[in-house]
Amino acid sequence: MKSAAGQYRLRIAMAAVNPTVGDLAGNSAEVLRAAAAAAQEGAHLIVFPEMVLTGYPVEDLALRSSFRQASKKAIAALATELAEQGHGDLVAVVGYLDEAPSGGPQNVAAVIHGGHVKARYIKTHLPNFGVFDEYRNFVAGDSTLVVRIHGVDVGVLICQDIWHENGVLAKLARRSPGLVVVPNGSPFEQNKDDVRLALVSKEAARMNAPFVYVNMVGGQDDLVFDGDSMVVDRTGELLARTPHCDEGLMIVDLDCDGQTSSPDVIISEDVIAQSTPIVTAIAERTSTEEEIWKVLVTGLRDYVAKNGFRSVVLGLSGGIDSALVAAIAVDAIGAKCVNGVALPSKYSSDHSLEDAAQMAKNTGLHFRTIAISPMVDAFTSNVVLKGLAEENVQARVRGTTLMGISNQEGHLVLATGNKSELAVGYSTLYGDAVGGFAPIKDIYKTDVWALSKWRNARAIELGEVPPIPLRSIEKEPSAELRPDQKDSDSLPDYAILDEVLTEYVDNDRGYEELVAAGFDSALVARVIGLVDSAEYKRRQYPPGTKVSSRAFGKDRRLPMTTRWREGNEAK
Amino acid sequence: MKSAAGQYRLRIAMAAVNPTVGDLAGNSAEVLRAAAAAAQEGAHLIVFPEMVLTGYPVEDLALRSSFRQASKKAIAALATELAEQGHGDLVAVVGYLDEAPSGGPQNVAAVIHGGHVKARYIKTHLPNFGVFDEYRNFVAGDSTLVVRIHGVDVGVLICQDIWHENGVLAKLARRSPGLVVVPNGSPFEQNKDDVRLALVSKEAARMNAPFVYVNMVGGQDDLVFDGDSMVVDRTGELLARTPHCDEGLMIVDLDCDGQTSSPDVIISEDVIAQSTPIVTAIAERTSTEEEIWKVLVTGLRDYVAKNGFRSVVLGLSGGIDSALVAAIAVDAIGAKCVNGVALPSKYSSDHSLEDAAQMAKNTGLHFRTIAISPMVDAFTSNVVLKGLAEENVQARVRGTTLMGISNQEGHLVLATGNKSELAVGYSTLYGDAVGGFAPIKDIYKTDVWALSKWRNARAIELGEVPPIPLRSIEKEPSAELRPDQKDSDSLPDYAILDEVLTEYVDNDRGYEELVAAGFDSALVARVIGLVDSAEYKRRQYPPGTKVSSRAFGKDRRLPMTTRWREGNEAK
Repeated sequence: MKSAAGQYRLRIAMAAVNPTVGDLAGNSAEVLRAAAAAAQEGAHLIVFPEMVLTGYPVEDLALRSSFRQASKKAIAALATELAEQGHGDLVAVVGYLDEAPSGGPQNVAAVIHGGHVKARYIKTHLPNFGVFDEYRNFVAGDSTLVVRIHGVDVGVLICQDIWHENGVLAKLARRSPGLVVVPNGSPFEQNKDDVRLALVSKEAARMNAPFVYVNMVGGQDDLVFDGDSMVVDRTGELLARTPHCDEGLMIVDLDCDGQTSSPDVIISEDVIAQSTPIVTAIAERTSTEEEIWKVLVTGLRDYVAKNGFRSVVLGLSGGIDSALVAAIAVDAIGAKCVNGVALPSKYSSDHSLEDAAQMAKNTGLHFRTIAISPMVDAFTSNVVLKGLAEENVQARVRGTTLMGISNQEGHLVLATGNKSELAVGYSTLYGDAVGGFAPIKDIYKTDVWALSKWRNARAIELGEVPPIPLRSIEKEPSAELRPDQKDSDSLPDYAILDEVLTEYVDNDRGYEELVAAGFDSALVARVIGLVDSAEYKRRQYPPGTKVSSRAFGKDRRLPMTTRWREGNEAK
Repeated sequence: MKSAAGQYRLRIAMAAVNPTVGDLAGNSAEVLRAAAAAAQEGAHLIVFPEMVLTGYPVEDLALRSSFRQASKKAIAALATELAEQGHGDLVAVVGYLDEAPSGGPQNVAAVIHGGHVKARYIKTHLPNFGVFDEYRNFVAGDSTLVVRIHGVDVGVLICQDIWHENGVLAKLARRSPGLVVVPNGSPFEQNKDDVRLALVSKEAARMNAPFVYVNMVGGQDDLVFDGDSMVVDRTGELLARTPHCDEGLMIVDLDCDGQTSSPDVIISEDVIAQSTPIVTAIAERTSTEEEIWKVLVTGLRDYVAKNGFRSVVLGLSGGIDSALVAAIAVDAIGAKCVNGVALPSKYSSDHSLEDAAQMAKNTGLHFRTIAISPMVDAFTSNVVLKGLAEENVQARVRGTTLMGISNQEGHLVLATGNKSELAVGYSTLYGDAVGGFAPIKDIYKTDVWALSKWRNARAIELGEVPPIPLRSIEKEPSAELRPDQKDSDSLPDYAILDEVLTEYVDNDRGYEELVAAGFDSALVARVIGLVDSAEYKRRQYPPGTKVSSRAFGKDRRLPMTTRWREGNEAK
């Protein structure tokens, strides 16, 4: 390691912007806006999230040559425009899609200055687990990058790069940067913020250099990027942190060692005159429920907006799932844009309709009632449908009615199923499963109750009307597809069910481990059997926001055709 | 390279079996049956497909410790049982799922002899493109394996390993094996058989050793493994090849150089007495239509059987798509197990019902008619539904009716959409898109006609009644959801549409390339716009057999939320 030439103070902007995949023009405009605001504040360096220019993840769009060319053109145009708008002195680290000399797609951070891309860092470690397919979509880089900015030797890494202690991190450490900046596209998972902070702190201390970690904000299909951008000093101490899920700019004055490395590119050697540092904020860690709530609201809000919808429609059964989804929708896009439809059948209780109406009254969402008996009767008079077939036709008439309203009026249909139901296949394909988006598909039933209670309590704190009717929270769950039906007729108690599901689905525990952990063996075998045989239903379920470490969807890829049945091997 | 100690003749069995994912007991039984048959024929070596014991692809089942333990137990039990049944002398190469010392899953071929696994080869090159997620699911091996069997030094590779000229192939070549055996799980794609043969020939000649290439047979969700197992000699000349999509055993006597290498494991040194070689067959290359037909039949047959169904139900509109699907279903599971339902509306032409009935008459499938007007009227009297909303409600009433029959009678519902429709979103979610399986989802409309004509011509060749009514082939396509509707009202001519779709979807060509190739720019922009904005529909579409190089589904992973619109950038 070179010895440092002294202390240098850089003013750094963390730009937690919310790009849209594929919207090169719109995302460029966002970058320009943020850069202008940062320049106004006297920033020397602005750091944007991973692939902010293209949005993230672009999935197989990376494999399209036309898209790669467009991204390359857009980054060059952005560099020119930054200079033309008078921000040529500001160094901007901007993620985009580039190409290797072979033509292969690469996940790159451009270092822009003076109207040009002065340097490029190519992501080295490509995550290919969980929701990530980066080994499929990108060619890895194999070099570190250090650029000198106002005398400070700044190393650049991208997201997954800092999760491999002996990988490119170690290579960069040998070059002794005075500062490390890390653009990220790190989707929310429960408790991941704690993990991120611990990691960034540890690696900054190991590198003996401050880290600037900038994460994306916003929803993209089933992912929500929750921001949580931060700065830690060379000892790993947290200096600044952006509020959870908040878009915007945070400015930090950071003292760094100067001239510590042999940079690949020298952008500027001039030392900044020391000014009084601006005071920065460390956003407080919010409660788990509040975190999840913000993520669910963000996921739905952005799916609606980025897909050009202005409103949503959903069935309001009077039950807790649809009430929770309605409350999320009201928070996401406003009650005026939420349409609730009660779809009572002959098996619906009086309280169902009352509770649905109460939900509408509490929040001000649009509400209407359409009795489904005429349509259900038309089916049962013309097609023989008994038992489960009759139950399902009710759900499908509701689905068809909601889709009809959607086609007629242009709303996005929301599916209201929760993770417990989806796990055990307790839903009707083309019935309650219809929808363009499923906001709570990754929320277990016990958490549905917890979030509902939390949201009502928050309303009381704020002096507002609690959105969710108390009876919807307190009554026993029922699909109401036959007389006196209760969920508990066919499913274990949700408290136990959700525990087994968490272990089996989220934690990949097997039958024997679960039995060894004290769960009843027959119950475990039954639940596992239900989960495994419902894969075909989940495959056709709408997307919805991931909040757990293992959401259904691209996070968990299992065959539909499989005879593997743990605990039921004899079958 | 060592000089060879002379010529040795091995009798080798290629076991093109059809395993089921997760069915360790059933797949073991299949292996035992094939081994017994091979032993009966005096074989010295039997080669099974990649991961035959677990089925393939297991997807994220590989990440479950319980499944890995079960696979390891099953391979040990299989080795014991082979010996106990008197086949201990037969060397069996059996693919299964194993674990690295770290616990990571590995794709392994076991070499079994004398009641034990004598050697293991771990797959080196893990495909992670197209339909494959092997870098996600497995940890790669980094060693070659050579075992001496009756004096012949046999190298083992797995599937993708032989597609990387400078990878493990080169390492193995330096060890100069006298024979190379390659278990495969290579799914069908049109014309892939020619590519496989060319590759195997080339690599055998480069290695100067015969190759035994054994591929799986059968359907697994959207993949069909089409067999096409083969033996080539050291010059690359084809000696034996199994018929396309056929299960079964092929025995080959193969002359190899002996003692050419320093083997890792010596199983047997004794030289086999030279016998008169058995005559082997080279299956003829079949026509493209016949190949695809067999693949579609296999894919549907196995989805039905492996998921425990016995029968299917589909809507018969009198149009060509449903007629083709019905003909495939009849060939796959027999007319007695196929239920066709005509679902006429007020917009249905007379010929629609006649042609549906004729299809039933031609094939003997079960046929019934359910008029949808009562159900449609119930919707339109109770919910305001005009224009597209009214069109869609008809499709959804049909979908709900078919699902009701399925729930009542236990049939698998078949969706009848083709690739052209799926590409441009010309289908109704929860309407014609309902189903557990979609046999022709990867067949463009022009190929729907070609396959239908081919199947009828084949019937005439065989002196049978052509299944598909001529009028269904010849009439102008129409969804019949409004008066006098024709597909050509909203879509370009299918001949042109399919060309543009092939270039855009299958070949990843962009707008500018297509225009440069002479397609009308407005048409290209419109088609691309339709394809891109229909991703959300495809995401909820049932699985169906892949036959092209780029099927919709896990082969093509694109965001639903994207503003990337080639040729429409101004939008």
